[in-house]
Amino acid sequence: MTYCLGIITRAGLVIASDSRTNAGVDYISTYQKLFDFSVPGERVLILCSSGNLSITQGIITILEKDIQGNEANNLHNIPTMYEVARYIGSKLREIQNEDRPWLEKDRIDFSCSLLLGGQIKGQPPELYLIYSQGNCIHATRDTTFLQIGETKYGKPILDRTLTFETDLAAAAKCALLSIDSTMKSNISVGPPIDLIMYQTDSFVIKHQLRLALGDPYLAKIRKLWENSVKEAFDRMPDIEWQYKRESDENILID
Amino acid sequence: MTYCLGIITRAGLVIASDSRTNAGVDYISTYQKLFDFSVPGERVLILCSSGNLSITQGIITILEKDIQGNEANNLHNIPTMYEVARYIGSKLREIQNEDRPWLEKDRIDFSCSLLLGGQIKGQPPELYLIYSQGNCIHATRDTTFLQIGETKYGKPILDRTLTFETDLAAAAKCALLSIDSTMKSNISVGPPIDLIMYQTDSFVIKHQLRLALGDPYLAKIRKLWENSVKEAFDRMPDIEWQYKRESDENILID
Repeated sequence: MTYCLGIITRAGLVIASDSRTNAGVDYISTYQKLFDFSVPGERVLILCSSGNLSITQGIITILEKDIQGNEANNLHNIPTMYEVARYIGSKLREIQNEDRPWLEKDRIDFSCSLLLGGQIKGQPPELYLIYSQGNCIHATRDTTFLQIGETKYGKPILDRTLTFETDLAAAAKCALLSIDSTMKSNISVGPPIDLIMYQTDSFVIKHQLRLALGDPYLAKIRKLWENSVKEAFDRMPDIEWQYKRESDENILID
Repeated sequence: MTYCLGIITRAGLVIASDSRTNAGVDYISTYQKLFDFSVPGERVLILCSSGNLSITQGIITILEKDIQGNEANNLHNIPTMYEVARYIGSKLREIQNEDRPWLEKDRIDFSCSLLLGGQIKGQPPELYLIYSQGNCIHATRDTTFLQIGETKYGKPILDRTLTFETDLAAAAKCALLSIDSTMKSNISVGPPIDLIMYQTDSFVIKHQLRLALGDPYLAKIRKLWENSVKEAFDRMPDIEWQYKRESDENILID
């Protein structure tokens, strides 16, 4: 499994991913799922992938090849974020076209999805989710985050804390805690954690972090958050139990 | 969708469920999913259901009919919790046998699952999950909670706070917050919330709560928890960004 998320706020972007891959529970590996295709000073492009590894690796390989071959369309010259998302979707479709019939025959899950976050000079930052079918959606002021992979465990903290006005450092902290909650509840999501924070109009990634398995900072954050949640939980008042009707007699409880 | 959970601790049991049912997003209804089959003073039996509503309603109807008909095997005379779980599983199989081919033909999801918590005099309390196939597992000291339905959003809070030694009032509070997190992230889980707290060896349910849509207590708990989580979040230190290697030059960040 995988968990990647992207957040867009007034101040910029946060992109994060885990690095665990599994083929069944008995074959667990580590693969980076966050890729930086930026051209510092000109454009920032961060890609995260989830789903069938052979297909997502294939997509990344083609994206790199097109840059190296200086193709008419590549990640370094496509003029808008929307067109970049559509271009990545078209590469995804190319590989799906070739491999899907073979995977389908053996009932192998061929689905995958990608997150694309970034900014091209002269345009605002944008955050896209590219679906397994190659189509895409983008995050908006109302829905400031997009997730792929194992999305549910880490969603409550995002729902409770994020808005478009959240400051960027808080958004990054929230992303890390969202991944931590997911790792806690699903062992198929795991370190290294890749985290990037990008400030609007800087056109360079100044904040980047990779937290490996056993990293003391990751352990510290996890412990701190666990204690904070426990304290918050302890401070919550006990339930106010009400009347309970039992048989024909009303018993007042507590 | 549905979300039900059961918790077993040294002190007793907590069982909770939502009451929202949907057939697609355009047909949302309210159905109670928590059923009390207790015989006060003798046995406490609480059942929660999730999945295909026609099948789970059918199971409940048969269970009631067997009690009313004073059948050789019914919920009021079966001697152990394990046998009760197996008996419920056999009723589930009866209905699946009859309906499944018809549902399968039209690709209608016929799966369902049940939680069974309770205590029969002379035996310890137990908590079972009965699968759609009629087989079952029970919670243990190592795994003190079982969930059915939309289980993921509400799992992190359980993972972070529950152990077999958690006191019963805290376990009940935890169950309510777990349901609240689920309702916050998935609108197909919703009130009324049914919540039961049972103290070992009391053989009567003294603590029971039904929180309807718009209930001010539910709104208060939600607001309190939201504020507590936000405060916990605010108290967390910002991320300590490290060196980032960029091209060939090392830049110290912050």
